[in-house]
Amino acid sequence: MKLCSFVVDGRPGYGIVTEGGIVDLGRRTGHASLRALLAAGGLETARGFAGDRPDHAFDAVEHAPVIPDPDKIYCVGLNYRDHVEETGNVETPNPTLFARYPASQIGHGAPMIKPLESDMFDYEGELAVVIGKGGRRIPVAQALEHVAGYACYNEGSVRDYQRHTAQYLPGKTFFGTGAFGPWMVTADEIPDPSALHLQTRLNGQVVQDTDLTLMITPVPQIIAYASTMLPLLPGDVIVTGTPGGVGSRRTPPLWLRDGDVVEVEISGIGILRNPVRNEV
Amino acid sequence: MKLCSFVVDGRPGYGIVTEGGIVDLGRRTGHASLRALLAAGGLETARGFAGDRPDHAFDAVEHAPVIPDPDKIYCVGLNYRDHVEETGNVETPNPTLFARYPASQIGHGAPMIKPLESDMFDYEGELAVVIGKGGRRIPVAQALEHVAGYACYNEGSVRDYQRHTAQYLPGKTFFGTGAFGPWMVTADEIPDPSALHLQTRLNGQVVQDTDLTLMITPVPQIIAYASTMLPLLPGDVIVTGTPGGVGSRRTPPLWLRDGDVVEVEISGIGILRNPVRNEV
Repeated sequence: MKLCSFVVDGRPGYGIVTEGGIVDLGRRTGHASLRALLAAGGLETARGFAGDRPDHAFDAVEHAPVIPDPDKIYCVGLNYRDHVEETGNVETPNPTLFARYPASQIGHGAPMIKPLESDMFDYEGELAVVIGKGGRRIPVAQALEHVAGYACYNEGSVRDYQRHTAQYLPGKTFFGTGAFGPWMVTADEIPDPSALHLQTRLNGQVVQDTDLTLMITPVPQIIAYASTMLPLLPGDVIVTGTPGGVGSRRTPPLWLRDGDVVEVEISGIGILRNPVRNEV
Repeated sequence: MKLCSFVVDGRPGYGIVTEGGIVDLGRRTGHASLRALLAAGGLETARGFAGDRPDHAFDAVEHAPVIPDPDKIYCVGLNYRDHVEETGNVETPNPTLFARYPASQIGHGAPMIKPLESDMFDYEGELAVVIGKGGRRIPVAQALEHVAGYACYNEGSVRDYQRHTAQYLPGKTFFGTGAFGPWMVTADEIPDPSALHLQTRLNGQVVQDTDLTLMITPVPQIIAYASTMLPLLPGDVIVTGTPGGVGSRRTPPLWLRDGDVVEVEISGIGILRNPVRNEV
């Protein structure tokens, strides 16, 4: 089952993506958001509406981030060997976790915004994990049972702000930079996320291409670590890291520019597509 | 005016701290939280109730973090020269910003929790700034007009997790580690936060002592920088950095232990006092 969030007629909603369009779940379940549905354990209830007549054409809505309002977003840095090498870093025994704030997120089709302050705007294709069942100190062996689903993420990064100090946060939380979509595919359809394949394309050219089995810290181990500090909650998002091929480490660098189109495709999930726009 | 958040009879509330006790503002204003009051521009309305008969003795409530539910917490690292030196770091032109999640916060008097995973639990006395008026790209010259008030913060840090990788987040967001209180003093009473003095005491012994004029990036410049990426919202919290004297950089190191009492006192604000407890 594919679940998405959107805005239609100025009102936020969420629903099931079917061949014929979106079945609006907000109207049917009474839960205000996809996060609230997950918190209520409502995935199976939702599934019962999957055969309903769709309410909205997929292209008629404004797509929102899959989870617009997560309590926490944990991003993982340096989680593929080729990206560790291209950035001149070294592998660490534990995953590199940093934050992005929810207000930096956008949905499928929305413009990624190159901010006024910088010309060093870069893409990062990644797998996003959406937590379904909360918990603290989740054991590795049970970690995948806590996943509601998987989505594509473009962890747009403002590299000069990322490098102002040792802490990445400023470069990772600009307005309009975190694309999250086009939907999440529920975990029952993806028993092993490491079996997926990710590709990032800039204006149709492949710029990142990896098997997810190459993650240094795999999804279950990331969940176990990230649930150590605080409980993970339903709707929390873990963005699992980008492979080699980022624009900033090319010669010459390949920066995102107004009019570019970036796609992140993950096998078994779909294609997240966003244009790039200069902030005005 | 001093404003605090609390829990009484299992229900969250907030109010004005007076000599005779707490005047409950939730009952009087209809706003559900101090953050909501700030977002509604309700500080002057609140002031009209300051002479009312108090509803709760100050010691009869369970103190909550001043803002339990901020949209964003920005912490500043390495913002005093003596702390930069004791940690072997170098000054940077821009402030070192990292995140802490709201669920890691506790109120005045609540135990700071040394987690099971670590014996390297450390204090960090800091000035916290609470945003009253939101905005993006706030100019330095107007920055203090965006401040609702100031409070004490003990940015409790789990040093081994902070050092697992280059990113501080895991060591800065453990459950029960961010003490925030005992109240905020509204900005009208503190025209210049750099004129304040901060002292951290461990079991009565002074371990940190600084004039806030020694901040490398002063409060207005921090606000200007932190409002570049995303709009700051009413209730957002900026924790402005700790001076030299942290336990982890002493010889031998001075780690927080079960039964310890830590106080952060800032002139013109008050004393934030928390016991330390081992997690069980």
